[in-house]
Amino acid sequence: MDPIVIVGGDAAGMSAAAKFKREHPDRDVVVLEKGEYVSYAACGMPYYVKGAVEEFDDLIQVTPEEFIEDRDIDLRLHHEVVAIDTDAHEVTAETPDGEVTLTYDQLLLGTGARAIEPPFEGMDLDGVHTLHSLDSAKAVHDLMEGNSLSAVGIVGGGYVGIEMAEAFAEHDVDVHLFEMLPHVLAPFGEMVSEKVEEHMREKGIDLHLDTAVDGFTGDSGRLTGVVVGDETVDVGLALVAVGVTPNAELADEAGIELGETGAIATDEHGRTSAEDVFAAGDCAEARHVVTGEPAYVPLALTANRAGRAIGQTMAGDETPVGDIAGTAVVKAFDLEVARTGIIDEAEARDAGFDPVSVTITGSSRAHYYPGAKPIHLTMVGDRDSKRVLGAAMVGREGVSKRIDTVAAALHTETTVGELEYFDLAYAPPFSPTWDPVLTTAKVLGGKLD
Amino acid sequence: MDPIVIVGGDAAGMSAAAKFKREHPDRDVVVLEKGEYVSYAACGMPYYVKGAVEEFDDLIQVTPEEFIEDRDIDLRLHHEVVAIDTDAHEVTAETPDGEVTLTYDQLLLGTGARAIEPPFEGMDLDGVHTLHSLDSAKAVHDLMEGNSLSAVGIVGGGYVGIEMAEAFAEHDVDVHLFEMLPHVLAPFGEMVSEKVEEHMREKGIDLHLDTAVDGFTGDSGRLTGVVVGDETVDVGLALVAVGVTPNAELADEAGIELGETGAIATDEHGRTSAEDVFAAGDCAEARHVVTGEPAYVPLALTANRAGRAIGQTMAGDETPVGDIAGTAVVKAFDLEVARTGIIDEAEARDAGFDPVSVTITGSSRAHYYPGAKPIHLTMVGDRDSKRVLGAAMVGREGVSKRIDTVAAALHTETTVGELEYFDLAYAPPFSPTWDPVLTTAKVLGGKLD
Repeated sequence: MDPIVIVGGDAAGMSAAAKFKREHPDRDVVVLEKGEYVSYAACGMPYYVKGAVEEFDDLIQVTPEEFIEDRDIDLRLHHEVVAIDTDAHEVTAETPDGEVTLTYDQLLLGTGARAIEPPFEGMDLDGVHTLHSLDSAKAVHDLMEGNSLSAVGIVGGGYVGIEMAEAFAEHDVDVHLFEMLPHVLAPFGEMVSEKVEEHMREKGIDLHLDTAVDGFTGDSGRLTGVVVGDETVDVGLALVAVGVTPNAELADEAGIELGETGAIATDEHGRTSAEDVFAAGDCAEARHVVTGEPAYVPLALTANRAGRAIGQTMAGDETPVGDIAGTAVVKAFDLEVARTGIIDEAEARDAGFDPVSVTITGSSRAHYYPGAKPIHLTMVGDRDSKRVLGAAMVGREGVSKRIDTVAAALHTETTVGELEYFDLAYAPPFSPTWDPVLTTAKVLGGKLD
Repeated sequence: MDPIVIVGGDAAGMSAAAKFKREHPDRDVVVLEKGEYVSYAACGMPYYVKGAVEEFDDLIQVTPEEFIEDRDIDLRLHHEVVAIDTDAHEVTAETPDGEVTLTYDQLLLGTGARAIEPPFEGMDLDGVHTLHSLDSAKAVHDLMEGNSLSAVGIVGGGYVGIEMAEAFAEHDVDVHLFEMLPHVLAPFGEMVSEKVEEHMREKGIDLHLDTAVDGFTGDSGRLTGVVVGDETVDVGLALVAVGVTPNAELADEAGIELGETGAIATDEHGRTSAEDVFAAGDCAEARHVVTGEPAYVPLALTANRAGRAIGQTMAGDETPVGDIAGTAVVKAFDLEVARTGIIDEAEARDAGFDPVSVTITGSSRAHYYPGAKPIHLTMVGDRDSKRVLGAAMVGREGVSKRIDTVAAALHTETTVGELEYFDLAYAPPFSPTWDPVLTTAKVLGGKLD
């Protein structure tokens, strides 16, 4: 029987390979990876640059050798798939030894995403980086360790931009962050953005909001500054982190359907429009649990669990890949910042909801317990169905996992009134009697009536 | 119109009074409280003894004056209700000025619970205390501050016993804890108990497990030791914390039905068997969300939210008091210890389930992120319905609010397979890609098939 073939050896691909192989140790699983790393911790890269993660190798979760020798997976590095023939069930890969064509029984596309490279003047200058591979992380890390830069620039105030601001600041350089929109972390909502901006300014970050970067300027091919209109901000390193785009071209060229988001369209089992072809992870859409519609939210858990589910499905046990809620958490210096579901009222209206939102300030501990810190929480509900639609929160502690309660409410189509009566954990060191989530649901419930 | 009358001015009673009064500012609300404190933070008492909460007054959440003057509630201290005539809609209270009889339109019993006083020899010695009122907390606090005791004894290894061990240890005395059962914190399950015991021993607590205390011995009316069989352990202070019992006698004498647990039986709106009489908080049963059966789990949130709901119901807006999941969290020195639902397999079988449980060790952060700590997690599922039945966890961080995700699963009758696909928050400083809750659900799901 032809092998299972997997294109891309990171979270989705290796999860699928490992799961399939556990179910069918006798079947062949071939993983074609264009680079030299597999199964690496992309989310850990900012902490490597920061110096919090000391060893580069700590970012490698499982080595190629382990997959090949311990798990009997036919992992082939430096194999870049350049064409798929879905009728013939064939993939063609360029390798150091020339082209190779393989016939697949079932195929999984786990081609991931890449950092968007905007058409800025000077993108090719030495010192301008994106952060979307271990190699780029290593390059930025070594620059920070080796050089005595006085200033760095970050273009983009998404979660990578925020995490990298913290990473750079640890190296005692001036950090300029440029964001085109009026706020950083737009998907977290304005309340959270403003708290984060205030905190980052306290930490000495130079925020340039509502500021479109025009490009970079240099000297002898080496970056010297970020250009904004008539002004130049002097920096010795620039990190461009304006988002990612799915690596969907290979699928597109093979006639596999892409969704409106530009990522590969998939059904609830991760199947694409082509027979026996699956897609998962940062190259694929997933279904949003609140809207029921396809969405593109490329995050690590989504890739891991979809990969694993597809491995199981390919092994004969049909397993849905699971819906996403857009749950995310970010450390922004001393703040924990989290979101889930739909927070933006316009987005909620577009999805057919009649949104109502409230913002409250609660506490991370009983008011009398030492060290209690404010938690600011926005929650959105639907006036018609009374369902919880989403929430965002920010605070110095107790935020990162508190958001999960709301995520659970989204997955179970819980109403705001039901959420208010969840029996959540209370003890003075960890929560007020009414957890901030409950208090917010209570206030929101009052506005939904 | 006759007033709303509330017996007991703590969490349930004052929540109801405040809520009703907000809805009907023109109606009279009379609260009869036998003591001199209302709305106090009983859960904070161990931290006051410890010295973490410095001011006694910090434990008072709202003063009697605020209730009376700001909220226009007719709060009467030192009024102990001694009889209820449910036919005549009358209560009789003993007051410093003699007996008073009041006619009620609707009545709420929020009489709370009291510490169980076992029939030990020597319970009346000076130096033997329970902890179930602000006065007792103050007495114990003052003894610890003022005396130079060399050893103290705690009888009972429930959450109060554990919290008090931490509180006493802060005062640099030898702490002996006596528990009749083989383990402390029995409702959290053996896995958690053993981790807590190991940790408490590391902290220097002298644990006497499987040890039935016979009583206390003293000299001139003053405690000198705890008697266990032929042995005496010398202590200068003993705290008896073997649980609480509902103050249900008043209701019982009035012919109001008690449940099998000995607490006042109530329906989903907090109504008792007597017309226009409600009960809430530590004196009343509540319905368990997993079993659907009455349960007695006297905790602060249950009292607060039932009180508030009943205030709303009495005001004409029928509001269920909400089910409980038995969710609890305890700080045990440097550990966070949490539970929800049904953990004990025998208890699950009694409730008609076919339980399966697994225990795994996860991590509080990504494995490569500095400071990652193990989280030990037990989860129980039902083989028939595949529902999640409960969970317990213990670790140095990230436990207290992680349990809430499982509590949410219980309230929504989520299956183990559904829980595995919740989109929970991930970032390296706060969680592995697969949160320990998801990993446990994954492993448990495998065993349920």
